[in-house]
Amino acid sequence: MTSIPSQSESAFAPTAAALATIARGFHARGWLLGTSGNLSTVVSRDPLQLAMSPSGVDKGELTAAQVLLIDEQGQMLSDHGAKPSDETLLHLQIVKDRQAGAVLHTHSVWNTILSDLYATQRGISIEGYEMLKGLDGVRTHEHREWLPIIDNSQDMTSLAQTISETLSRNPNAHGFLLQRHGLYSWGLDLQQAKRHIEILEFLLETLGRTLEVKR
Amino acid sequence: MTSIPSQSESAFAPTAAALATIARGFHARGWLLGTSGNLSTVVSRDPLQLAMSPSGVDKGELTAAQVLLIDEQGQMLSDHGAKPSDETLLHLQIVKDRQAGAVLHTHSVWNTILSDLYATQRGISIEGYEMLKGLDGVRTHEHREWLPIIDNSQDMTSLAQTISETLSRNPNAHGFLLQRHGLYSWGLDLQQAKRHIEILEFLLETLGRTLEVKR
Amino acid sequence: MTSIPSQSESAFAPTAAALATIARGFHARGWLLGTSGNLSTVVSRDPLQLAMSPSGVDKGELTAAQVLLIDEQGQMLSDHGAKPSDETLLHLQIVKDRQAGAVLHTHSVWNTILSDLYATQRGISIEGYEMLKGLDGVRTHEHREWLPIIDNSQDMTSLAQTISETLSRNPNAHGFLLQRHGLYSWGLDLQQAKRHIEILEFLLETLGRTLEVKR
Amino acid sequence: MTSIPSQSESAFAPTAAALATIARGFHARGWLLGTSGNLSTVVSRDPLQLAMSPSGVDKGELTAAQVLLIDEQGQMLSDHGAKPSDETLLHLQIVKDRQAGAVLHTHSVWNTILSDLYATQRGISIEGYEMLKGLDGVRTHEHREWLPIIDNSQDMTSLAQTISETLSRNPNAHGFLLQRHGLYSWGLDLQQAKRHIEILEFLLETLGRTLEVKR
Repeated sequence: MTSIPSQSESAFAPTAAALATIARGFHARGWLLGTSGNLSTVVSRDPLQLAMSPSGVDKGELTAAQVLLIDEQGQMLSDHGAKPSDETLLHLQIVKDRQAGAVLHTHSVWNTILSDLYATQRGISIEGYEMLKGLDGVRTHEHREWLPIIDNSQDMTSLAQTISETLSRNPNAHGFLLQRHGLYSWGLDLQQAKRHIEILEFLLETLGRTLEVKR
Repeated sequence: MTSIPSQSESAFAPTAAALATIARGFHARGWLLGTSGNLSTVVSRDPLQLAMSPSGVDKGELTAAQVLLIDEQGQMLSDHGAKPSDETLLHLQIVKDRQAGAVLHTHSVWNTILSDLYATQRGISIEGYEMLKGLDGVRTHEHREWLPIIDNSQDMTSLAQTISETLSRNPNAHGFLLQRHGLYSWGLDLQQAKRHIEILEFLLETLGRTLEVKR
Repeated sequence: MTSIPSQSESAFAPTAAALATIARGFHARGWLLGTSGNLSTVVSRDPLQLAMSPSGVDKGELTAAQVLLIDEQGQMLSDHGAKPSDETLLHLQIVKDRQAGAVLHTHSVWNTILSDLYATQRGISIEGYEMLKGLDGVRTHEHREWLPIIDNSQDMTSLAQTISETLSRNPNAHGFLLQRHGLYSWGLDLQQAKRHIEILEFLLETLGRTLEVKR
Repeated sequence: MTSIPSQSESAFAPTAAALATIARGFHARGWLLGTSGNLSTVVSRDPLQLAMSPSGVDKGELTAAQVLLIDEQGQMLSDHGAKPSDETLLHLQIVKDRQAGAVLHTHSVWNTILSDLYATQRGISIEGYEMLKGLDGVRTHEHREWLPIIDNSQDMTSLAQTISETLSRNPNAHGFLLQRHGLYSWGLDLQQAKRHIEILEFLLETLGRTLEVKR
């Protein structure tokens, strides 16, 4: 570590450990294979600092010591020889737009398939499931969740902009899909973000398998 | 703990540990994702007291120390800062109607799909499988199990009443489904309730995949 | 233990431990849910004695201490308060007819589905897969394995007889299915029997999912 | 060990441990069932020496001590009582043709199914997925990966020759399938090879399940 304010330093170690535990669990479920996906948590709000999984690392073996500390420009404050993901900009955008305390991004088989299957509709409507009640602020299974689908891109600045506009147009959305890429969700803290990912992954698998059974 | 009678106190610790172990195992199988589902066991019959998983807690990390003790009105006897699930009333209803020693409730992908697919038939008939013999009192695979499907609702008092009527009309049922919500099963004790859940989840997945293959 | 010959006594402890490890691993894969299935290994040939999983026990928590020692009539030589499965007779029949050193019986979703789907053909032909080479004596993927399907029954004496006749008519079979019930396989020892189960379960899942994709 | 040069001896122990860890993880995912599949890593380039998983061993219990050291003719330099797989020649061919540092070979349900379904097209085209960026040298999801399919054979000398020709015709391929047999991939080192296997397995499952959903 080079210059972590004392406020965030004390928060960093347990946060990094919790983030690594979630990464290993999601990898075991096949949601972060091949070093895909990334995870972040806010460690300090002012100045904004995130604990973030490094790029190109096996999430099934992620340790707290490998977790990076980055600032609000996505620059590293810790010195690991590792580097942050190009998608750091997307995490920062979501943190700012949603006042999120944590952002998680998974690549599951089912989120990949459904992000493609419903791409022309620009999103997926999920309605009538009890599991929706696990999403922050939802009180009944009669809730209708619109999960927007955004075109994939390698231009992170442009993609962050598109995401920001999408979030603005969908103020109640708890996540979004990048087409043939993966799922982003977030929460007030890491536990809530994990809960949201588990719920959205569950619902996407349920919708996908329902198509198989009903067709 | 505030006021646990000595009788139940001695039973509570091992019961809470067993309940937490089952919760973590079911979470690993994807049956309790996103803090969904809940688990209870009778600790004392007179007065009626249940060990119960708290609301809103990650079942993949549930510890014995987090397990609540509740009375027959669903009020907490232990003081954790946690709170019991709204579905506590349903657990109490089943304990009373079936003289159950444990009640388990799972949200799996397959139970969600089949609870919806067969909703208009008000239940699922499962017949001819050897696995049925694992249900208490069943001696042959020629048994026919009727798994009732009940409309989902957020009104727990009304839902408890509907469940009670359904159990009364189906005295031999070992479980029931709430539509697009999940599976309830129970047993004389926690081990038997776990066995019943595993069997019903297995049979629902078998029926669901059979539809995929045969269609 | 009451009267184990010294020959088998020394072999019993490591065998029981190995058998319990396999049981827990198969339960994790969903092949022994709800206390279903059973596992046995020959501990002594003369007199014939088997280490065998007890009836009605959660295979996900099976310990070496729970494993029973039984004689060639299926009577218990150890005194646990547990009892052997009714299917002990089937294990003994296979041990005698095939000179098997171990017999394993699983209840998987895929073996249940395919045992039903192909029941009118009285078996499943599996041909052209490299995985077949893992079956004892098979040298090439061009091998054709015939996996017989036998009607399920609760009459164990009659079922043992049918199995014996089926094995006699299919001297090269490495396993068989009981309709809507499960898979039996065996091997010269526990390791080989485990290998055979893994291979047959893999091939049955491959055939089942191929039906889903090709339909 | 009999005659390991000191250079490779120091590299062998950690490499063997890493290889065994990957084997156990892939076995847990069902990619190496029934002793199928094999794994190798280059320990020394001059002379060429590989750490290699032994033939016929349960990959779910593979230990570092069981890993073999072999030379460039596929002969064992270590003395274990175990023997190298017949497919050692294929590993050596890939190491030479691709300057690979590690070669991994898996038998998954999905790679088996797709290797058969697309066999008449001699390969599978995978395009437009973000996951492709995890393959070495790929910078965008717009990449098109051609995964060649080669006829299965038990003649390893001939098969090694066919693989070499296929690699020569497809200089950018990151893996290939043997029909109804399995997937080969490789990398500069063991970590990269593991990443490539995870990505290709993910993409094959995604393609397979997309067929189920879209049909």
